[in-house]
Amino acid sequence: MPPAAIDTTSQLTSAGVSSALSKTAHSLTNGANGVSGVQLAELDASRITSTYTASPRPVPVPGSPEIAAQNICTDHMITAKWTVKEGWHAPALQPYGPLSLMPTASCLHYATECFEGLKLYRGYDGKLRLFRANLNAARMLNSATRIALPAFAPTELLKLIMKLCATDGPKWLPKDEPGSFLYLRPTMIASDPALGVQRPNEALLYVILTCFPRLDAPTIGADGSPQGMKLLASGDDTIRAWPGGFGHAKVGANYGPSLVAQGEARKAGYNQILWLFGDNCEVTEAGASNFFVVWRTRSGATELVTAPLDRKIILDGVTRRSVLQLVRERLSESTENVQGLDIVERNIQMDEIVQAAGDGRLLEAFAAGTAFFISPVQEIHFRGTDIRVPMTAGEAGPYTKQIKTWLSDIMYGKEHHEWGIVVEEQS
Amino acid sequence: MPPAAIDTTSQLTSAGVSSALSKTAHSLTNGANGVSGVQLAELDASRITSTYTASPRPVPVPGSPEIAAQNICTDHMITAKWTVKEGWHAPALQPYGPLSLMPTASCLHYATECFEGLKLYRGYDGKLRLFRANLNAARMLNSATRIALPAFAPTELLKLIMKLCATDGPKWLPKDEPGSFLYLRPTMIASDPALGVQRPNEALLYVILTCFPRLDAPTIGADGSPQGMKLLASGDDTIRAWPGGFGHAKVGANYGPSLVAQGEARKAGYNQILWLFGDNCEVTEAGASNFFVVWRTRSGATELVTAPLDRKIILDGVTRRSVLQLVRERLSESTENVQGLDIVERNIQMDEIVQAAGDGRLLEAFAAGTAFFISPVQEIHFRGTDIRVPMTAGEAGPYTKQIKTWLSDIMYGKEHHEWGIVVEEQS
Repeated sequence: MPPAAIDTTSQLTSAGVSSALSKTAHSLTNGANGVSGVQLAELDASRITSTYTASPRPVPVPGSPEIAAQNICTDHMITAKWTVKEGWHAPALQPYGPLSLMPTASCLHYATECFEGLKLYRGYDGKLRLFRANLNAARMLNSATRIALPAFAPTELLKLIMKLCATDGPKWLPKDEPGSFLYLRPTMIASDPALGVQRPNEALLYVILTCFPRLDAPTIGADGSPQGMKLLASGDDTIRAWPGGFGHAKVGANYGPSLVAQGEARKAGYNQILWLFGDNCEVTEAGASNFFVVWRTRSGATELVTAPLDRKIILDGVTRRSVLQLVRERLSESTENVQGLDIVERNIQMDEIVQAAGDGRLLEAFAAGTAFFISPVQEIHFRGTDIRVPMTAGEAGPYTKQIKTWLSDIMYGKEHHEWGIVVEEQS
Repeated sequence: MPPAAIDTTSQLTSAGVSSALSKTAHSLTNGANGVSGVQLAELDASRITSTYTASPRPVPVPGSPEIAAQNICTDHMITAKWTVKEGWHAPALQPYGPLSLMPTASCLHYATECFEGLKLYRGYDGKLRLFRANLNAARMLNSATRIALPAFAPTELLKLIMKLCATDGPKWLPKDEPGSFLYLRPTMIASDPALGVQRPNEALLYVILTCFPRLDAPTIGADGSPQGMKLLASGDDTIRAWPGGFGHAKVGANYGPSLVAQGEARKAGYNQILWLFGDNCEVTEAGASNFFVVWRTRSGATELVTAPLDRKIILDGVTRRSVLQLVRERLSESTENVQGLDIVERNIQMDEIVQAAGDGRLLEAFAAGTAFFISPVQEIHFRGTDIRVPMTAGEAGPYTKQIKTWLSDIMYGKEHHEWGIVVEEQS
């Protein structure tokens, strides 16, 4: 496993979640922050204090414009402060509201900030579920320490996430609306009120829960048929990430610098940038999602191909990882109806995609991530050429559709699976 | 001039500052932010409102620990809000204090933030001066638009900077303490309370003025003699910037990801990282400063060498530019006492420095930037080798010393020069 990969020792399952969530003695805080000889407090979800809102807010109607605007949060948030001298303070569940930061705060100048994105699902069996949230918590630890933010035991973050979901989930994801979800955003920022360019001495971890639109639903084209994503391949003057950089970490620094290119792509009618790397135009990510293609090789094999993690220039996506695991378990053998998929993690050059499309060997392509879930790609514009990806009646191809259905069934409790972590609701 | 370079049309001089500060009709706001057909308000310093503090704070004593902590700001700050619908709101001079940001604010997640660093000097002639602040204002525009933050006329930002200096300078830089300075930090952050990964719809520009320690003063070694900077060359697993990235822009995303390496360097006894790039270990920046060497070539010429701007992986430093201009004007011809310097902007490989040091041809090295001013380098540790840079009795070599003196004389009004912009003080 490359160093960028998620720590699989924290792969909690639904069944094992209670025992595994017992406090682990990580003692990470001291080691990672350079204060030796002092026992600093660890992040400890059991010390949480709760203050409930006196002004509960209305839940927006499904499909309303506020949801598309991505600016409605639920009634509460969780915060936990850290200082280099004392370690982690007791976390607090409190009413959602503004943060007060000094204008000198490190995170406002030096991008000392990282985050996670995951969803809380209201299942068809009436239960609330997270999907492999243990992987998000572990990745957040990797991201935080990449930018000199404090370490913590991922299981403690997971407990805080579950506490917020247990509190606000029942109201904001009503039982009579199965198939709906909210978006969780654990965030950590350096809050030092001092301009020195140095490791932060203060930080704030917080978790918020927001209304979020479905981004994987196909848009409807001018002819009334559903449309897949249209991607614009990045030019050679804009590179998202580089070996030795931080493209594998979910840190703020990967996003702001991508927005100009993304804005230009949208203006030109594309949904996202397809980020390329190197002289051979290797495909890395689609927007902020991982990218997959399904093609037939010249020797007749059918492959599911995605970029590898070894150069640390792409995110080790939870959806990416889940797609690979499911295909390995369920789609690698040919059946009567379906040809088995060979899984290949390697650098894909744009020329290979162009050739496969030209030969009629390009079968499907999709973006995979939490926000966009599994979104079929219909077109890639690369240096003056439009590459069309076949779509069945404007919808995802059969492999993409099958993978998406399996994942969705686990998320919404149609299939009981260890990846679906049930959240006990607070009454 | 490469695209990364500062717009020299805004090179204001002391003499020309009043006329050049007249409002320019840039109309940048509309163009850069994609709202067409609507006349948005430009940043306009003349619309400023002023609210003075009712609780003025004490000025720390020179040399006190609060100054070293870099967390004391002056009594006031300037803020200006921008929205995509209206453009720039009227700026406000107001008491220094915390900002209120929603937990969803773009700058806390996506590093949609940029800044500038410059100093306000109390001259030996009793006057307050900025040093080429027009270049900082122009660079801030470049940085802002690189990360999809709104455009503005740099001259308006310069007027806001001067307003803050005029207000707080008289008290915080007393006339009876010539040779002192404060540090200015113009900052822009995206304040959108929405999690969408997209061009910001709201932003806040602010300018603060802080007490700042002298970082160019030599530290005193164990033997009581002054010490130059000790630099640790970066390993090949960490790079600061890459072509097609944003290393030339003063955006937050260049800083947070550098802090782990910097923290390790400090723990190992070094002052800063010397950032290398590429298979040939080319020298780019020293910490957050530009890097210069003076060496003798094998053919006997004496060269001042620094990395070029063309790949856009280093900052187009105001101090860097000023060093090059002064040396070109004043040190390029040999005199009776001094051999003239050839100026060379090109990639320097570490092997060349190692060889020059081994041959006795490495004469001087220094870091150049606003925070560290001109700081002589005494040692570079590169892959197991300590490269010693000659220092005269532990102090800067003669070229470094001469350059530093010239710059300092302009900053503190010992030499009247167009680069020194006098700030009229508000009584």
